[in-house]
Amino acid sequence: MSSDNKDRPLAGWRLRLYETVYESETTAGKLFDICLLIAIVASLIVVAWESVPDLSETQLRVLSTIEWSLTVLFTFEYILRLIVVRRPLRYVASFYGLVDLVAIAPMYLAIFVPGMQYMIVWRSLRLLRVFRILKLGPFVQEASQLTEALVASRRKIIVFFSSLAILAFIFGTFMYVIEGPDNGFKSIPIAIYWAVVTMTTTGFGDIVPRTGLGQAIASFIMLLGYAILAVPTGIITAELASRHHKITTQTCPSCLKQGHETDAKHCKFCGTAL
Amino acid sequence: MSSDNKDRPLAGWRLRLYETVYESETTAGKLFDICLLIAIVASLIVVAWESVPDLSETQLRVLSTIEWSLTVLFTFEYILRLIVVRRPLRYVASFYGLVDLVAIAPMYLAIFVPGMQYMIVWRSLRLLRVFRILKLGPFVQEASQLTEALVASRRKIIVFFSSLAILAFIFGTFMYVIEGPDNGFKSIPIAIYWAVVTMTTTGFGDIVPRTGLGQAIASFIMLLGYAILAVPTGIITAELASRHHKITTQTCPSCLKQGHETDAKHCKFCGTAL
Amino acid sequence: MSSDNKDRPLAGWRLRLYETVYESETTAGKLFDICLLIAIVASLIVVAWESVPDLSETQLRVLSTIEWSLTVLFTFEYILRLIVVRRPLRYVASFYGLVDLVAIAPMYLAIFVPGMQYMIVWRSLRLLRVFRILKLGPFVQEASQLTEALVASRRKIIVFFSSLAILAFIFGTFMYVIEGPDNGFKSIPIAIYWAVVTMTTTGFGDIVPRTGLGQAIASFIMLLGYAILAVPTGIITAELASRHHKITTQTCPSCLKQGHETDAKHCKFCGTAL
Amino acid sequence: MSSDNKDRPLAGWRLRLYETVYESETTAGKLFDICLLIAIVASLIVVAWESVPDLSETQLRVLSTIEWSLTVLFTFEYILRLIVVRRPLRYVASFYGLVDLVAIAPMYLAIFVPGMQYMIVWRSLRLLRVFRILKLGPFVQEASQLTEALVASRRKIIVFFSSLAILAFIFGTFMYVIEGPDNGFKSIPIAIYWAVVTMTTTGFGDIVPRTGLGQAIASFIMLLGYAILAVPTGIITAELASRHHKITTQTCPSCLKQGHETDAKHCKFCGTAL
Repeated sequence: MSSDNKDRPLAGWRLRLYETVYESETTAGKLFDICLLIAIVASLIVVAWESVPDLSETQLRVLSTIEWSLTVLFTFEYILRLIVVRRPLRYVASFYGLVDLVAIAPMYLAIFVPGMQYMIVWRSLRLLRVFRILKLGPFVQEASQLTEALVASRRKIIVFFSSLAILAFIFGTFMYVIEGPDNGFKSIPIAIYWAVVTMTTTGFGDIVPRTGLGQAIASFIMLLGYAILAVPTGIITAELASRHHKITTQTCPSCLKQGHETDAKHCKFCGTAL
Repeated sequence: MSSDNKDRPLAGWRLRLYETVYESETTAGKLFDICLLIAIVASLIVVAWESVPDLSETQLRVLSTIEWSLTVLFTFEYILRLIVVRRPLRYVASFYGLVDLVAIAPMYLAIFVPGMQYMIVWRSLRLLRVFRILKLGPFVQEASQLTEALVASRRKIIVFFSSLAILAFIFGTFMYVIEGPDNGFKSIPIAIYWAVVTMTTTGFGDIVPRTGLGQAIASFIMLLGYAILAVPTGIITAELASRHHKITTQTCPSCLKQGHETDAKHCKFCGTAL
Repeated sequence: MSSDNKDRPLAGWRLRLYETVYESETTAGKLFDICLLIAIVASLIVVAWESVPDLSETQLRVLSTIEWSLTVLFTFEYILRLIVVRRPLRYVASFYGLVDLVAIAPMYLAIFVPGMQYMIVWRSLRLLRVFRILKLGPFVQEASQLTEALVASRRKIIVFFSSLAILAFIFGTFMYVIEGPDNGFKSIPIAIYWAVVTMTTTGFGDIVPRTGLGQAIASFIMLLGYAILAVPTGIITAELASRHHKITTQTCPSCLKQGHETDAKHCKFCGTAL
Repeated sequence: MSSDNKDRPLAGWRLRLYETVYESETTAGKLFDICLLIAIVASLIVVAWESVPDLSETQLRVLSTIEWSLTVLFTFEYILRLIVVRRPLRYVASFYGLVDLVAIAPMYLAIFVPGMQYMIVWRSLRLLRVFRILKLGPFVQEASQLTEALVASRRKIIVFFSSLAILAFIFGTFMYVIEGPDNGFKSIPIAIYWAVVTMTTTGFGDIVPRTGLGQAIASFIMLLGYAILAVPTGIITAELASRHHKITTQTCPSCLKQGHETDAKHCKFCGTAL
């Protein structure tokens, strides 16, 4: 994030504006974040709505007006962020800075380059800001617990997905050889796509096995996919469950260490009574 | 619930009727609840049956007769509840009071306003009363354990669903841009609907990607949805598992501590017999 | 099961045959059970094969011969069981006795009543005997652990399925009102069937929502079904995990009680050192 | 694996080459493995690409050239492995030796036998070598933990899959009798295939029940499949969770006991510092 201390103005109106625009600790900051969130959601609804076919001339004009108003608003917000921060170039190059720029640029570019307005989809990335607001208060612990559990089991997840990818390739190629292009398995990449659709038990039904052998192997693939769903679930659950036992944030009065279980009486690191 | 003490008549026939109609501790009360449950289920079957096309004249007449009889029965029950309770207006404004009214009103309104009989679907909400009956006996602990586990992990669930909604929006918009209206992704809202269908591994197959890039991204969305199913499962399981160990609320008579396991005979903190 | 002591012959050839036919402790008994299993599987393959359309005259004749041979074999086995057991009527009225009769009767009835041979599907129930064989050796503990976990959480499962049924009814009726017969939701029962297909994330795609509101509600139903899959998983997992801690079959030398955790040093019931 | 000590040359250039080709401890060995992995992935992409219909003459020629180059490379690698190892016949007969041969043989056979090039799909099995590379470093523990959990619960998994197979057979046969060939359930094997598609909640939608009774049973099958997904998940999770608590294999220097948690500093049995 670009909100570390060196970016923060020291005093005056810039500090007050910085606290409003970049932080969420003050009332004005919270209000700003909530208004921003509503504006982002509104702009996303407008983008989605505009894509609906057979809109009347009036509807399109209204939607276009709202979209331009919101874009101008987001432009002002972007300029405000540039003025208020102490190191504007660091903000421009930061993740959120790039997202903020990418969210407004396509609208202006679309005047010169037709078809560019589709890039407004990137604006949806701004929704990630919602997590900054959720960071306030009791959601911090929950979100960080989930993230920690995912990070702690990242290696198991990589092993799992590698196995899944190899299985999808092998099964896909097999099914291509067995079913062939006449039954919808037009090429090996499409057969691999079908294998993923089947292993994840999604089952679109756009491509289905027609031969007896193909249906037998498809049954096996489905059962496999159905059963190995247990593996990622087991990984995350075991991780979350192990976190449940050390949920207290109590600190040992002697060695100042945390991580004690809920019903622990003595510090497990130095033996001092808690 | 509207069954707190101030609603309860003090003595006489009203108390006895109150115990039958509102409570389930007496034999008459249990019998009343079971009969009511059967009547609700019967009326729901009739409503469902009536919607089946190509019924004969006789079938329709029989179904209509049963439905009117049950509606009259429910009307009598509603009036009985009004008479018996000490503060009828509180009952009328309570959740169950509204559900009870909404369950009978559409039938009478349908005489004047055609098409109103469809609103009888709200009658299905009366099925929620079944949980009042289940509250009797050993189901209490189970239902409350499940509810507690869900409530305790509500914040994690909100974080999870927010992430899912943002992902569905981003993937939906991407797929709309990649596949376009010619391949069935007619608008961004429909593409978001498709993204939800795919991420939850439902896979209706009414809209499917046709381009190579679209199928590659669809594969990724499916694998993601398949894997992140592990997250809510992990949340609920870890919660339920942690509840398993401290199932009794028994307090040690000597050291006054709680958290003893179900089959423990001695306090695990001080050794006193429980 | 019909294999309790009062059914067992006391001595002689009947005891030896009883041990072979009803039990699996002797070598002959194990061999008999494995042969029986192979015969059941073979007869099922034959029944399945016969249903395939466009078989040649020769194939049908061969399949019919095998089926009659196996039926005669099963008839002999049934008569043998009647002769060998001490209380034949109890066997006839027992679960396995009825299954054994139902597995052979349709073939003979089909001579007089055409179409009766379809009832041979009940023969597949005989496959349940496979579990008797699996009971031998190390599968006992695993199968009983799974069964115990399911039995212990049966009330939670009933609460869960009741909620699911009520949700399916409510969502189905809503979708019938919203989408209507023109979009495939021909009646409320069919709409409930669709709601089950959607909530379980099966998604056949034979009926799909066409209106915007219908698709929005369908998205919600899918997400709900996707997330509440966590509930039964959590129930079973928490149950199985709690069983993991008391896996030792060690018996306390003083009070003869079991159920001690793996790393326990003292009996948790009487305090004697293990 | 064929990399035990008796296969290893004692000294000289053969030992250095052996360390490069068969092992991954040296820098050259790691580089060789990574290059091999890239070559395998490249050859798989080429095989998949070639299957895409409507490629231009030039594209096909380029792909064919790459494929032949890679095949020659793999041939050299195979010969190198034969030269370098001390017991070449043992390598030829080993699992990886067979996979390596099967990965190159079809290309040469395809010159004489047309259609043989399809067998190149076996080359995808070479991807299993990727796990040898992953064995280096911190993936060892994760992969072995997952494998151990699966091995430890193999009996429960067998019991689970047997039950699933019996259920699929019973439900499939029932649905064949109820729906019949006119509604797409053309034979019992196809109905069993449908039952697997439905129980795993895949739901292709190529075969769907049309009768009311069929849809009711299908709903039941889906709910059952949806709920029993909890069983394999519970098995794996309980296994992984129990592994989480005893992750170190460290032995206490004083009482020689194992089973200490990862962050424990003192033996939990005797208090000695670990």
